[in-house]
Amino acid sequence: MHPDRCFDADPGVRRVARELYEGTRALPIVSPHGHVDARLLATNEPFANPAALLVTPDHYVLRMLYARGVPLESLGVAPRDGGSFERDPRRIWRRFAERYDVYRGTPTGLWLDQELFELFGVRERLTAESSDRVYDAIAERLGSPEFRPRALYERFNIEVLATTDAASDFLEHHEAIRRSGWHGRVIPTFRPDAVFRISSRGWRDAVGALGASAGHAIESAEQLVIALAARRAFFKSMGATATDHGVMEPYTETVSAGEAEQLFERGCRGEATVADQRRWEAHLLMMMARLSADDGLVMQLHAGALRDHDTPLFERFGPDIGGDIPIATEYTRNLRPLLSAFGSEARFTLILFTLDESTYSRELAPLAGHYPAVRLGAPWWFHDSVEGMTRFLDRTAETAGVHKLAGFTDDTRAFCSIPARHDLSRRVQTNWLARLVARHIIDAADARELARLLAYDLAKRSYNLET
Amino acid sequence: MHPDRCFDADPGVRRVARELYEGTRALPIVSPHGHVDARLLATNEPFANPAALLVTPDHYVLRMLYARGVPLESLGVAPRDGGSFERDPRRIWRRFAERYDVYRGTPTGLWLDQELFELFGVRERLTAESSDRVYDAIAERLGSPEFRPRALYERFNIEVLATTDAASDFLEHHEAIRRSGWHGRVIPTFRPDAVFRISSRGWRDAVGALGASAGHAIESAEQLVIALAARRAFFKSMGATATDHGVMEPYTETVSAGEAEQLFERGCRGEATVADQRRWEAHLLMMMARLSADDGLVMQLHAGALRDHDTPLFERFGPDIGGDIPIATEYTRNLRPLLSAFGSEARFTLILFTLDESTYSRELAPLAGHYPAVRLGAPWWFHDSVEGMTRFLDRTAETAGVHKLAGFTDDTRAFCSIPARHDLSRRVQTNWLARLVARHIIDAADARELARLLAYDLAKRSYNLET
Amino acid sequence: MHPDRCFDADPGVRRVARELYEGTRALPIVSPHGHVDARLLATNEPFANPAALLVTPDHYVLRMLYARGVPLESLGVAPRDGGSFERDPRRIWRRFAERYDVYRGTPTGLWLDQELFELFGVRERLTAESSDRVYDAIAERLGSPEFRPRALYERFNIEVLATTDAASDFLEHHEAIRRSGWHGRVIPTFRPDAVFRISSRGWRDAVGALGASAGHAIESAEQLVIALAARRAFFKSMGATATDHGVMEPYTETVSAGEAEQLFERGCRGEATVADQRRWEAHLLMMMARLSADDGLVMQLHAGALRDHDTPLFERFGPDIGGDIPIATEYTRNLRPLLSAFGSEARFTLILFTLDESTYSRELAPLAGHYPAVRLGAPWWFHDSVEGMTRFLDRTAETAGVHKLAGFTDDTRAFCSIPARHDLSRRVQTNWLARLVARHIIDAADARELARLLAYDLAKRSYNLET
Repeated sequence: MHPDRCFDADPGVRRVARELYEGTRALPIVSPHGHVDARLLATNEPFANPAALLVTPDHYVLRMLYARGVPLESLGVAPRDGGSFERDPRRIWRRFAERYDVYRGTPTGLWLDQELFELFGVRERLTAESSDRVYDAIAERLGSPEFRPRALYERFNIEVLATTDAASDFLEHHEAIRRSGWHGRVIPTFRPDAVFRISSRGWRDAVGALGASAGHAIESAEQLVIALAARRAFFKSMGATATDHGVMEPYTETVSAGEAEQLFERGCRGEATVADQRRWEAHLLMMMARLSADDGLVMQLHAGALRDHDTPLFERFGPDIGGDIPIATEYTRNLRPLLSAFGSEARFTLILFTLDESTYSRELAPLAGHYPAVRLGAPWWFHDSVEGMTRFLDRTAETAGVHKLAGFTDDTRAFCSIPARHDLSRRVQTNWLARLVARHIIDAADARELARLLAYDLAKRSYNLET
Repeated sequence: MHPDRCFDADPGVRRVARELYEGTRALPIVSPHGHVDARLLATNEPFANPAALLVTPDHYVLRMLYARGVPLESLGVAPRDGGSFERDPRRIWRRFAERYDVYRGTPTGLWLDQELFELFGVRERLTAESSDRVYDAIAERLGSPEFRPRALYERFNIEVLATTDAASDFLEHHEAIRRSGWHGRVIPTFRPDAVFRISSRGWRDAVGALGASAGHAIESAEQLVIALAARRAFFKSMGATATDHGVMEPYTETVSAGEAEQLFERGCRGEATVADQRRWEAHLLMMMARLSADDGLVMQLHAGALRDHDTPLFERFGPDIGGDIPIATEYTRNLRPLLSAFGSEARFTLILFTLDESTYSRELAPLAGHYPAVRLGAPWWFHDSVEGMTRFLDRTAETAGVHKLAGFTDDTRAFCSIPARHDLSRRVQTNWLARLVARHIIDAADARELARLLAYDLAKRSYNLET
Repeated sequence: MHPDRCFDADPGVRRVARELYEGTRALPIVSPHGHVDARLLATNEPFANPAALLVTPDHYVLRMLYARGVPLESLGVAPRDGGSFERDPRRIWRRFAERYDVYRGTPTGLWLDQELFELFGVRERLTAESSDRVYDAIAERLGSPEFRPRALYERFNIEVLATTDAASDFLEHHEAIRRSGWHGRVIPTFRPDAVFRISSRGWRDAVGALGASAGHAIESAEQLVIALAARRAFFKSMGATATDHGVMEPYTETVSAGEAEQLFERGCRGEATVADQRRWEAHLLMMMARLSADDGLVMQLHAGALRDHDTPLFERFGPDIGGDIPIATEYTRNLRPLLSAFGSEARFTLILFTLDESTYSRELAPLAGHYPAVRLGAPWWFHDSVEGMTRFLDRTAETAGVHKLAGFTDDTRAFCSIPARHDLSRRVQTNWLARLVARHIIDAADARELARLLAYDLAKRSYNLET
């Protein structure tokens, strides 16, 4: 692990980058959006084994192996039909180790290298030959108290960690963390996607679950919004500062109350079409913005993933195993109704994420460069790489200004990857600033302030985490 | 203001960039497309005050403050309903000064810094604390004869300045400049957008105004084209060398005479739809290309801005206050009819501008790399930044060749920003060429010639300004 | 010709790039996709003259001159109507030499410079003044035995050269090469585009020709697929390892047998519409994938060129004279049916090419980063330039991994440009790797392996050329 990794080769840039990075590397980690399971920190049980920690549950890791022909069963992923799969973690680990070269030059490789080196003290390359030794070294550490989740949370210097939770979630793990007296700040995020998907088979169940959690039956679109408002209030009481919404297309439109009820009824009868869902989602996004302008929960929008692209694989293994593929995404027209209505509201913040980099300079930076409510979420998913993060900064900051970015979000399920992800992000951010300094576009004092903003302050401010 | 600002840190690149830049910095400014008001140079009255010069009328400046929550009223923008707004220029200036950090790292910031330093001799940072001193220093200068518009035109070393004018404009300010005996070359550009928008409420008035200016009533589509031809001839007699057309979508199609008349009639009855407008615009673009192939006026096409995206803000303040947002734009299919008909005509030049950078390498460079008539307009609006201009050159020059670029256009309303905009452009262009030299892709002699082309010759040639 | 051309100016990057390049420059050339005419190597006749070799047949060369106003007739291109055109090769060459500056900074210029210098030993700049001397020097060499096609094949160190051939081609030139006893490996590629274009006038003739070559009449969609399977077997027996498919849109869908027959019948009656063609192509792409999964021929897909954009020029000169323009292209949704059906088949390889760079990171890299069958074809056509190839690597490798790229394909008709094209590609690839090494993202040993992969191994593996 070279101390100057990811910094430009040019000595002038590198010197500045190194200095800026040194000023941010020890800042606490603010993680306002991710998918760590709160149960981890509620129970504080040790991690089971290296494969269950680093391989089997991480779709970033799985997809690169699958794409090279490694069956998911051999990596410990259980088929839904009860078919056989590898259960021996040491063999799963070996399969991973044998093909560790697939991660060369990828962000996943940079994260894994750093985890192995810094967290687990591994000092040799992971290969088929070293597989068992590395496995044993990690397994030994996982058994020690210092590697329990809460101890790691502290060692990682995490200041706040947001999870992502269904609207009907009772947040019992968040509650357990609170009651435990442990000081870690683990907060929920309100994600009501299930009740948005009115044309899917699971919609009625999702509405039922929402009603059960809200304490009243939901028999109309209006009641559904009332239930959502109640759940938002509950999430807020549990520390939430944000909501999150995943949609294919960020389409918004003012839908009349009458039409909303018709859509609701078609959903109840199981007759809602894909076109109905488009309008229903448009309606609920408007409702969510209206509630956010009222209750102050920051609204996140993740658009543009076509989920479960590989139909047979989805049928065999379920979601989240690496088969989601981005699509071209339109923001300018789609968000116009929502932004015309709420984009200048003082209490409203909308954080936009995309998987379509062509929108960075064409749509997202101009939107953030006009509407007070809009901030730009970090380069997402396939784009939180060295080049991807640099492209994001290059394409957005000149038009929107650095202050309109929302800071870094690691968006990860993989708890132990959090420090490496934030470290890589800080390296890229400071290197990007160093290029501006070296070209005399900003001065060193500006760069130090902006480095701190990008690493820490922007995430706290954008997600209302300053109190 | 560092003398090497915007040049790469690499010493090899920087040395070449500096030398190339020194060879272009003193070249006269050719400004073939922009929005300076000709009245400025006709009356030659002093600028009123620093705020009225630099803040209130410049939507580049306004939008960055608005996006950070600063109300437009506080920046001196008057609501259309007669509501109150800040009228004290010193207070407007202070509001601007307090938030001057929003421009850090943005092209607007680079332009403003250079204006303050070079034009107004300001030697301290603009902050809340320095606000009044800077205001007084600028105000004092604005009162002196050297800061009258014509004196500045000369000091800026402007060789030609094109304005943008409605088709029905009587060009009395251009006429006054001519009659005054002053030697400055201030020429109009023919922009008939108002008669393109057949589905808008103002269309009939626009047609009426066009008829009045052309000296005959317009009662058919055919008469409308005849009137446009007459007005083009008048503009040409006043020095115009180009037309300009702003459309959402650059759709073109051969529309029959009969259908054109039907569209015209629906427009007259106030019944034209958005679909009608699309065909009407397609028809008029074809007519304008035909007339350009005949009268030699260079045709500019600016496509892809969704104007007045923020509906309530537009209703409150009107257009051009920063709320225009780009959309994805298609050129290959849309321009095929026009280019098949006129793209190889000897007298025809079509200069294409885009707000959608994904079209640079996919559509625009290949079109310019085939059709003799096509040239690529400078990176427009949100993209005339350091990174934006570099991306444009990287994505177009290899396929189209530098000679098919149209040179730099500043496209500004802000008269005093013209030198800074051209200077930044020349810095980026020469740095881009220096990278080619340093990689031995072109040699130093080629680079000197190309630097001059990009800074000066291409604009003159592309806009027929050589005579 | 500077030995370090195309390498970064930074000394740290350049040193590594130079070393990596030296390790790959002498590797044999694997050319698995291109358009060289097999007759050239079958007859082994000398090239006629410099113009017929380097100017008239190369649309890369022609379009840059045409775009600057040089008539195609003056470059030796024959109008279809029998109109006059320049027949004197020396005059054609002079026209080319006079305007040689149009190629400055373009990939075509880099290739031509290298051909003139390295292959033909030209040591002066090509200009109007030097035109005749250079012509004579080249013409003299073309007359010598060392400049016959087979001698050049050997001098170029070509290991395998794939041509592109119609499905009904009898491959007599490939057969002649085989029978001649010459050791060169010149293999065909199966490209059945003509029978895909069911709405075009030539479709019935193409079906007839396919039937004739397959030895049976084709009277149904089913028989057509059977004939294609037979021809694939024949191509394979002649050394083919791949198919190729050119479509505007990579749309795929499972079409029922009944519907396929209805489409076929409408095609036979000359009644197939553009919409019919879309479904027919979708159907045949599915069939081709099914056959590839069976016979192991690698499937190449080239999507997104709008052919013959300039209608009058096409009517005057026919296809392939530089008037093809890219369009925005969608892969995620369009390929879903095909990839869900075959994307994880062990024997199936699908190599995707695009002219729409916005899909690199948004769609293509994620698809290759999931589906075992998918590999990414080299930056195609307008994008095989220094910046274009660098963008491709930057946007795909982090997400898909270098191993999922298909290596370089020169895609050229211009036999003598092959070494220069591969050399440029190797320079860009090693410079890109050197940037990773200099930033400590990969180490030097990894870089050496990846350099060899990119220059040689990936093409062999991806196209099943290892045996």
